[in-house]
Amino acid sequence: MSLLMSRRDLAFLLYDWLDAEALVALPRYAEHGRETFDAVLDTSERIAEDLFAPHAARGDREEPQFDGERVTLIPDVAPAVRAFADAGLIAAGHDEALGGMRLPKLVEAASFLFFQAANIATSAYPFLTAANANLLVAHGSAAQIDAFARPELEGRYFGTMCLSEPQAGSSLSDIATRADFEGDSPLGPRYRLTGNKMWISGGEHELTENIVHLVLAKIPDEHGRLLPGTRGISLFVVPKYLPGADGAALGEHNDVVLAGLNHKMGYRGTTNCLLNFGEGTRYRPEGRAGAIGYLVGQPNHGLAYMFHMMNEARIGVGAGAVALGYTGYLHALDYARNRPQGRPLGPAGKDAAAPQASIVEHPDVRRMLLAQKAYVEGGLALILYCSKLVDEARAHDDADVRAQATRLLDILTPIAKSWPSQWCLAANDLAIQVHGGYGYTRDYAVERLYRDNRLNPIHEGTHGIQALDLLGRKVAQDDGALLHALDARIGATVERARTLDAGLREQADALAKRWARLVEVTRQLGAIGDPQARLANASVYLEAFGHLVVAWLWLDVTLAAHGHADDFDDGKRAAARYFFNWELPKVDAQLDLLASVDTTTLDMRDAWF
Amino acid sequence: MSLLMSRRDLAFLLYDWLDAEALVALPRYAEHGRETFDAVLDTSERIAEDLFAPHAARGDREEPQFDGERVTLIPDVAPAVRAFADAGLIAAGHDEALGGMRLPKLVEAASFLFFQAANIATSAYPFLTAANANLLVAHGSAAQIDAFARPELEGRYFGTMCLSEPQAGSSLSDIATRADFEGDSPLGPRYRLTGNKMWISGGEHELTENIVHLVLAKIPDEHGRLLPGTRGISLFVVPKYLPGADGAALGEHNDVVLAGLNHKMGYRGTTNCLLNFGEGTRYRPEGRAGAIGYLVGQPNHGLAYMFHMMNEARIGVGAGAVALGYTGYLHALDYARNRPQGRPLGPAGKDAAAPQASIVEHPDVRRMLLAQKAYVEGGLALILYCSKLVDEARAHDDADVRAQATRLLDILTPIAKSWPSQWCLAANDLAIQVHGGYGYTRDYAVERLYRDNRLNPIHEGTHGIQALDLLGRKVAQDDGALLHALDARIGATVERARTLDAGLREQADALAKRWARLVEVTRQLGAIGDPQARLANASVYLEAFGHLVVAWLWLDVTLAAHGHADDFDDGKRAAARYFFNWELPKVDAQLDLLASVDTTTLDMRDAWF
Repeated sequence: MSLLMSRRDLAFLLYDWLDAEALVALPRYAEHGRETFDAVLDTSERIAEDLFAPHAARGDREEPQFDGERVTLIPDVAPAVRAFADAGLIAAGHDEALGGMRLPKLVEAASFLFFQAANIATSAYPFLTAANANLLVAHGSAAQIDAFARPELEGRYFGTMCLSEPQAGSSLSDIATRADFEGDSPLGPRYRLTGNKMWISGGEHELTENIVHLVLAKIPDEHGRLLPGTRGISLFVVPKYLPGADGAALGEHNDVVLAGLNHKMGYRGTTNCLLNFGEGTRYRPEGRAGAIGYLVGQPNHGLAYMFHMMNEARIGVGAGAVALGYTGYLHALDYARNRPQGRPLGPAGKDAAAPQASIVEHPDVRRMLLAQKAYVEGGLALILYCSKLVDEARAHDDADVRAQATRLLDILTPIAKSWPSQWCLAANDLAIQVHGGYGYTRDYAVERLYRDNRLNPIHEGTHGIQALDLLGRKVAQDDGALLHALDARIGATVERARTLDAGLREQADALAKRWARLVEVTRQLGAIGDPQARLANASVYLEAFGHLVVAWLWLDVTLAAHGHADDFDDGKRAAARYFFNWELPKVDAQLDLLASVDTTTLDMRDAWF
Repeated sequence: MSLLMSRRDLAFLLYDWLDAEALVALPRYAEHGRETFDAVLDTSERIAEDLFAPHAARGDREEPQFDGERVTLIPDVAPAVRAFADAGLIAAGHDEALGGMRLPKLVEAASFLFFQAANIATSAYPFLTAANANLLVAHGSAAQIDAFARPELEGRYFGTMCLSEPQAGSSLSDIATRADFEGDSPLGPRYRLTGNKMWISGGEHELTENIVHLVLAKIPDEHGRLLPGTRGISLFVVPKYLPGADGAALGEHNDVVLAGLNHKMGYRGTTNCLLNFGEGTRYRPEGRAGAIGYLVGQPNHGLAYMFHMMNEARIGVGAGAVALGYTGYLHALDYARNRPQGRPLGPAGKDAAAPQASIVEHPDVRRMLLAQKAYVEGGLALILYCSKLVDEARAHDDADVRAQATRLLDILTPIAKSWPSQWCLAANDLAIQVHGGYGYTRDYAVERLYRDNRLNPIHEGTHGIQALDLLGRKVAQDDGALLHALDARIGATVERARTLDAGLREQADALAKRWARLVEVTRQLGAIGDPQARLANASVYLEAFGHLVVAWLWLDVTLAAHGHADDFDDGKRAAARYFFNWELPKVDAQLDLLASVDTTTLDMRDAWF
């Protein structure tokens, strides 16, 4: 069996649970069917196995090198990303006119998991490129799409997102990169950009002819000053090589200079860069300092455009966390089945003369495997559920369904980002523990998987930022309409479960009771006027909310397995039981803390040392 | 301020809380006083700062190299361990006759924390040597002590512990290294050893003239067969270089050959080896294959001797976890105070035009710092408390006090090993999170500290092994006398707290209620005849037990701060409040699970995939 993802599990979740085939009833997906979906999954699994997985360890060991002149990657990366692009996967979700196949997001997300599981560092290059191209297609001009998005969708250019600066990470309103208007151009209003961008994944490499940077920068006011806050923040497309004269694709090197690579705990194969825009003397396009950028869409809308992309990127981060946790679980399971050690306790104790048993026989190892299974399959359900909502929000012909899907997606996005980043990372930790000392060595994949996954609670908005998004914005938005939409879905699952059998009724009641309490706590917190007191424990709220959402999904998934009695369905039930018996009760202490409006963290001022 | 450990905190815990000065009333420690204790702490802090900390990052980056012939370490290691030995720290706890200063374990443990915080990888060499020498002093012959322990205590030889084998880690009864009797010698009965030993820290290097391996091997029965189980397991001293002829210290190279170095996630500066004993053709001492070893103590007592050492080693592992968590916390606190980002929410929301605040102003960052503080200072209290018990068990003149200290130590050892390994590791994880993207890079110490600390839940008995030790052995031992001894201590703290003020009474009640429930659950589980059902959820029991013990210690520590009103004491109270409001309630769900005798993990058989 492949140790990337379980095809059986994917098929169950896609077809038996989420009824992916029903998507073809939507006009946008009418050309599709289970055969085309499975063909994409087959292709993805094959390329991931053949070209991505084999260099994952090497890419970790031999980091990208920067000699001051150019960046060198191990040679295995280029053919892998080339195969990804050649299979049409960067463009998969787009229209035929853009070289796409109108693949539903649900299937695209499922197929991308293979690459994330096989080699998340290499997968980052095409994934970032796809996100970049999507943004340009959504908000760029036709000329910008032709000049930049098309070659990205073909894999000839790769793309980046340039948001953070050394002094501005979570607080994007403090960016200091400025964009000064120079004049119009066929590619839109042209600006000169100066500033530094930090944490730019894929910011430099020689995998492609060109690199398309999407850059947030501030347009100064009429006195040439940058305004505080978010005012003036706009989005620019800043290519590494400017378009050439006389229609040539590539002209001068833009004034974008790699200042250095960051050396990370994991995710090492992805170059992560400090980029200087217009701060060097080496490249002076058209004879002047400053990077040339073309305004995308309207001035001042940069953050809105970015957040449009960011919401998909956040689900993508959650998906990466799931994939890393999932493959780690399969590695741990494989190890546990094959590693003899000790003897299981029988009712009469231990027989030292018996042959050693596989460690999967030990209850504590089974605990660690079941926890991983509950986390990674729960996380997978969450990501696929959200991906289907993307399809409904994008392509459903009923406006009410679209609106409802959008509401659900908005409220679930911080969960889809944060929950797998926390719990599928915990799964990777358990995968190391199952391996014992071997898991602590770089000879086993689980060691790297943990390090790779540790990025996910940080980038695209930390855990704390997701918590503020959920409690400070989403649950209150539109008079609670988002929360209400979710409440209705959870209620429907609870009702279905209650009618089926006694075991499910117990789980349904356990969930319903706690979910009702969360709704009540939400109301209670919402009534607090002081935002600092209201939001002080937002992280606990996020975690409780996440566990309740995943408990709901586990219950819903179990309904799809109801009445089936093979090993696979038994496994689903066992993992659900684990989640309900071991995980869900953790929420009670969190809800108690929230209900008490605990001020411990607020009251702690300067008494550290 | 030093970022290793807080001297103020150490002084408070040692003198105000544990009354270390009272130890000098014991005859063994009569020569000491606060001045000598502080002098050792001063020396340790200075050497750790000057010689250990500066190469921690380099030792991680430039791992030990093995060219097939010899092992090369970075040059900074040798002078550091030399200074450690020259300060008398390897021998510190021993009698003057062995070059020691009869330092109480409490002060020794406190002083060692500086080295573990500064550079745990380099500190491992002298720490292992001290443990090795202690074992020889306790169980070896006078000749063995002179030949091996004395040069170790002087730092001229270093030592290792050779227990695990590639096929036998947690299950030591399955070791296959055999020891065949050859004859008597001045150093005791002489055996030839053949076998492989895995995970041997410090197993090869050129830091010292010689390396003293303490090796577990099986003596075959009269038919030359190795018996199953633990029968025949004996302890041997196997030096890298045999004693020379005519009284020369060093003679032939023994048949101990480095087969390879393990490449680890962290702890990289410590060589970790696969050693072959008597399996090569390169060294044939006295013309024959096989490593020469001298029996330590009696045959068949190897495991008992090792476990004597192992219990101290387990507390040492906990101490290492505390030190790594503690220095990580200080790094995170320092970063949080100096990193501007965003603006704090006031009652009226946020003012985007205000200057950025330090991130320590954000409640969610304070949450992460308070959690770290509660974990690492709680862990420190636990380690120091246990160390004082070692002194009482070893040196008290009242046999009842000695016996009571031994009981407490026995039941607390699995907690002292596992709790810091879990929660001070969690502190390191939070330290990364406080640093945001920077914490994920190798430019900041917290990234390495996490990787170093991740070993601690694995070595010297995994979390699962500690759980079986606690629930399967310790709580039932001597008709529950160990648990009873702990119950009495917790009860005494609760009573004192109840009389002092209302806030403490609330904490005392919260603890007492849950502790009583744990005692009841222990009784309930003890009544289950089938050991598999009784022990299935031992890990949850370990975790609940650990949190209750640390809550007790936090309450006890707070009593020592009672009535003082400076920042330091306020900080202690804030961390205690955090532990009681945020952490202790987690135990309820664990106790519920245990009380329900949940069989989810037992029932899960082969339905994985």
